[in-house]
Amino acid sequence: MSITSKPVKGFLLDITGVMYNSDPGTIGRLIEGSVEAVNRLYAESAVRFVTNESTRSRKHLFEKLTRLGFTLKEEHIFMPVPEAKRYIKDHGILKEFEDLDTSDPNCVLLGDAELGFTYETMNAAFRVLHETNDPLIIALGCGKFYQRMDGPCMDVGGFIRALQYACDARVVITGKPDEQFFKAAVDDMGLKADEVVMIGDDIVSDVGGAQKAGIRGVQVRTGKWRQSWINHSIKPDLLVDDLRSAVDMLLKKTIN
Amino acid sequence: MSITSKPVKGFLLDITGVMYNSDPGTIGRLIEGSVEAVNRLYAESAVRFVTNESTRSRKHLFEKLTRLGFTLKEEHIFMPVPEAKRYIKDHGILKEFEDLDTSDPNCVLLGDAELGFTYETMNAAFRVLHETNDPLIIALGCGKFYQRMDGPCMDVGGFIRALQYACDARVVITGKPDEQFFKAAVDDMGLKADEVVMIGDDIVSDVGGAQKAGIRGVQVRTGKWRQSWINHSIKPDLLVDDLRSAVDMLLKKTIN
Repeated sequence: MSITSKPVKGFLLDITGVMYNSDPGTIGRLIEGSVEAVNRLYAESAVRFVTNESTRSRKHLFEKLTRLGFTLKEEHIFMPVPEAKRYIKDHGILKEFEDLDTSDPNCVLLGDAELGFTYETMNAAFRVLHETNDPLIIALGCGKFYQRMDGPCMDVGGFIRALQYACDARVVITGKPDEQFFKAAVDDMGLKADEVVMIGDDIVSDVGGAQKAGIRGVQVRTGKWRQSWINHSIKPDLLVDDLRSAVDMLLKKTIN
Repeated sequence: MSITSKPVKGFLLDITGVMYNSDPGTIGRLIEGSVEAVNRLYAESAVRFVTNESTRSRKHLFEKLTRLGFTLKEEHIFMPVPEAKRYIKDHGILKEFEDLDTSDPNCVLLGDAELGFTYETMNAAFRVLHETNDPLIIALGCGKFYQRMDGPCMDVGGFIRALQYACDARVVITGKPDEQFFKAAVDDMGLKADEVVMIGDDIVSDVGGAQKAGIRGVQVRTGKWRQSWINHSIKPDLLVDDLRSAVDMLLKKTIN
């Protein structure tokens, strides 16, 4: 589907690397023009935010974005934790211990932890999985890396692979690039997948994931963008400098 | 090949989980009968030791085994580090910095590090690989886990997968289960692969690896042995309680 084949009635936005860049020790740095771009989307279109972040609660992320200068609604932020909770509930994983007792665990939930990924914590998770007959990892996204101001940083995906290999576990991905995750945000706008674009800095999780869900994928040249992705097997529907350019181009196209 | 199809003229022994069990804070605990078994092998057959351990030097491992009560020759211990060095040299990876300057690295060598696997060290390795056009990981083995007295512990394999996934790196395995590694030890005894047995506690690295190299694989029920491996796709040529039983059975067969 070409970026111009159908009017764009709604936008899904990745947060980190698109709206701001993370920077250790600070709340992060705004990407120029992104506050105004989000304001335009609220005024002239529809917008939802889809992120795999899981270190903090949605409330915490909402407050951080507000401090950075964004005006948005907390309930428009989609994060994988609630979806993972639903999976655990739907599959009766918690049936045996409805009081949420974690003293006898039977699966491992893996999300952002960054400095929490020590040998001890990884090994504790490994031992839980190693003990079970059908080891299951529920992952909050499976990103390869993300971009911080001080350089690229390993994301949760690698650590999932580490545990998966060590104990031959099954992996269920919640969050991007899982199709259901995108669909939930599209449904919330009352739109159809082909009426929406996803704007992100990750060629696999954002652009590829959206395209698999029938959503057009826009790649920005901010955040973790790499020049070598020009030759990536995943081809974005649109490649732009940043969120502002994407919004300028696509709102114009929509109105004309 | 059946265990009885050809006389056994030489033995390859895995060390940890076969000769002794590792135990944090101590030099380890002897597995009963293993000192005598090694003595018998030196007296009545030929023996070499093949291990993926890389935390310490061969000299250090030799001294530890001596303190545990074993009588063996240091040069009979085969470890992956020298092989990895050879690979690096043969492939001209060090050509550009023959003074061994590591300030501008172009590959990552991954071995046992255990508590060294922090987020920071993993991320430092990731950044090296992420910067290169053809990222290469040279791994010292690719074990899933090993058994310590306090429980099973993640081995280097998972951490290789983590880095490999995060930066789409190529991986070269040195050490078990790499065929060349087994061959080097077999050659050193002046024997052929089908005249030798490998005795180990790891169904994949030891038994499967040996079998791929044309060596009969003996699985012991010590170390990391798991009852569920009865159904493993890899079938050992012989399953025995421990090193002592294996040596008793196989020396008898050889002499008769």
